Amino acid sequence: MRILILGGDGYLGWPTALRFSAAGHEVSVVDNFNRRRWHSEHGSASLTPIRALEERIEAWNEVSGDRVRSYVGAIEDGDFLEEVVAETRPEAIVNYGQQASAPYSMLSRERAAETQQANIIGNLNLLFAMRDHVPECHLVKLGTMGEYGTPNIDIEEGFIEIKHKGRSDLLPFPKMPGSLYHASKVHDSTNIHFACRVWGLRSTDLNQGVVYGIETDETAQDERLITRFDYDELFGTVLNRFCVQAVIGHPLTVYGKGGQTRGFLNIRDTLQCVELAVANPADAGEYRVFNQFTEQFSVAELAELVKKSAEHLGYEVELRNLDNPRVELEEHYFNPVHTKLLDLGLQPTYLGEELVESMIGVIQRHKARVIDDAIDPRTHWRPSERQAGVS
Amino acid sequence: MRILILGGDGYLGWPTALRFSAAGHEVSVVDNFNRRRWHSEHGSASLTPIRALEERIEAWNEVSGDRVRSYVGAIEDGDFLEEVVAETRPEAIVNYGQQASAPYSMLSRERAAETQQANIIGNLNLLFAMRDHVPECHLVKLGTMGEYGTPNIDIEEGFIEIKHKGRSDLLPFPKMPGSLYHASKVHDSTNIHFACRVWGLRSTDLNQGVVYGIETDETAQDERLITRFDYDELFGTVLNRFCVQAVIGHPLTVYGKGGQTRGFLNIRDTLQCVELAVANPADAGEYRVFNQFTEQFSVAELAELVKKSAEHLGYEVELRNLDNPRVELEEHYFNPVHTKLLDLGLQPTYLGEELVESMIGVIQRHKARVIDDAIDPRTHWRPSERQAGVS
Repeated sequence: MRILILGGDGYLGWPTALRFSAAGHEVSVVDNFNRRRWHSEHGSASLTPIRALEERIEAWNEVSGDRVRSYVGAIEDGDFLEEVVAETRPEAIVNYGQQASAPYSMLSRERAAETQQANIIGNLNLLFAMRDHVPECHLVKLGTMGEYGTPNIDIEEGFIEIKHKGRSDLLPFPKMPGSLYHASKVHDSTNIHFACRVWGLRSTDLNQGVVYGIETDETAQDERLITRFDYDELFGTVLNRFCVQAVIGHPLTVYGKGGQTRGFLNIRDTLQCVELAVANPADAGEYRVFNQFTEQFSVAELAELVKKSAEHLGYEVELRNLDNPRVELEEHYFNPVHTKLLDLGLQPTYLGEELVESMIGVIQRHKARVIDDAIDPRTHWRPSERQAGVS
Repeated sequence: MRILILGGDGYLGWPTALRFSAAGHEVSVVDNFNRRRWHSEHGSASLTPIRALEERIEAWNEVSGDRVRSYVGAIEDGDFLEEVVAETRPEAIVNYGQQASAPYSMLSRERAAETQQANIIGNLNLLFAMRDHVPECHLVKLGTMGEYGTPNIDIEEGFIEIKHKGRSDLLPFPKMPGSLYHASKVHDSTNIHFACRVWGLRSTDLNQGVVYGIETDETAQDERLITRFDYDELFGTVLNRFCVQAVIGHPLTVYGKGGQTRGFLNIRDTLQCVELAVANPADAGEYRVFNQFTEQFSVAELAELVKKSAEHLGYEVELRNLDNPRVELEEHYFNPVHTKLLDLGLQPTYLGEELVESMIGVIQRHKARVIDDAIDPRTHWRPSERQAGVS
């Protein structure tokens, strides 16, 4: 199958490209290296020593004999993206090509506008390119569980049957995004749903939980294939950050009470889910949503798990509750349905001490690269709290 | 009160500015004249001979003794908008400053991206400018009833109590926008709701129906004060277009079966509603939604009303059902709640033959300006239907 991966140089995009290539698909990737640039601008970097895209692609060719094609450019440039789509004629497109950090989107007006502009317009350009060049192609879009927020009812997978005043309809699940980044994903979902209804496109929106982990079957085959791993306040997600903090002797920074509960999944399961979506495409005109996570944890539970696992390995670990830089409920109901991917055959990789210990092992190898200054939160959802923050 | 009106040169923005000025408020307007430019690009123009903004402002000063301040620039330019907000320190802001045509947003990838970029980023810049300079200011945002689509349940005013699996919550009403323009308004709503929740801003989102009419108390005082009136396929709304068609002997173009039902209101009632919202501001942190229309009609009912009224005045009127250039249900349930503005004191102006006849009277005075070629639909929601279209 011809598969196009937008954001193919990223944390998930690169391992996804390798997975599809290893499975015998014809893979092309698009990236504009924004993620690398944003890290440079903010004095942070991947824990893992990632190679330049061309070097990675060369290494994969040596390892596998397979060749991944690359296109360097911004998908916000509609002409560029249209050319790539017309040339590669993909049967499936996986769109990871977005600014994916909530704190980054809350840094300033400029960063908020950059986030929404890049994400919305890039994805909108993609819908037009599909309509005009490959209308049968299946769009697999990475959404986020953070689109839903934390409502006081069970979260369904994208749509909910609402009974109201004696009538009923199956309607998009109401959204309460927790940052301007999460809002951009809500906007994308609305645009994609529209394109499916009106143009007959087919799409699967993967409302993904928080991803953790470093290695996949393919990236572990050669050190030059390793994917990026972020632990900084802007791009690091909570479990990855806790593991790095445990290794370097930095207190685990729990935001607020730590009762915030989210869905989580292993990076290997992200690849499984995307593969399952691609192998079982949506129908023409169908917009479907899968809630993509395998387990749910509170932030405090994760901190305890990392502390326990790291202590087994001989690290001394302290927890520290910081004033929450975000605006979010710290105690709330959270019970999202997530059966559709299981029904397609997802075999979850469950989180446990063993898995945390293996992550810590990889982090230990690269600990000299940690930039300590980049870890503590400096980005506050409410700017007036900047002064009052702990860091 | 200090009131800032974004899009203050437009169909509704200009009369709104005059209304507030007449009521003794200190009014500033912002516009970048995009609407005038778009008409030039598409070979269309306002039926009414509108004057340049500075000339209008001068005329209003002559008529009333009041001075409206103007700022020329694009609100997508965040620095410009921030300066205007910092300088004018508004207590209320009315945001009409958007690309407001559904067909325009469906013309091409470029126009779709322009629409979403201008609307979303302009409004996002506004939220930041308010947060940083006038956090107590009340944002009155023009949304649209078209954000909801036509669900099979009653449409509530912005939020709906959902009972689900034994629990319940009051959540944003699900949205199914009918064009990429309508989608941009959904995105704005999500962003504004976020800003109210997280930054404590106060906002009223006016989900407006289709506006008709030409004159308001203020614009009728001097011919130089007249507002724009569009009847072309891109910017003309249905009732206004029918009235022009009746006057020039063009068949009334009913899209599809004409069973599409929408909420409607008179331009005078738009001003009333905005005044009521400004006079009764939302609380700090409150995001509220009013469904802003006074009556609902099907397209076929409006065509019959215009035909009957025009025939009374001696015009010969023919109806013509065209293949619908849009993708929309032509027979559907439609029962939106719209009581909040009535509760605040809205006195509706109801549509009837007398009112249509008075619109026809004004149109008759300007009929020599009609550009016949600009009326029939050329913009199709599904591009493959371009060739098959009637016009």
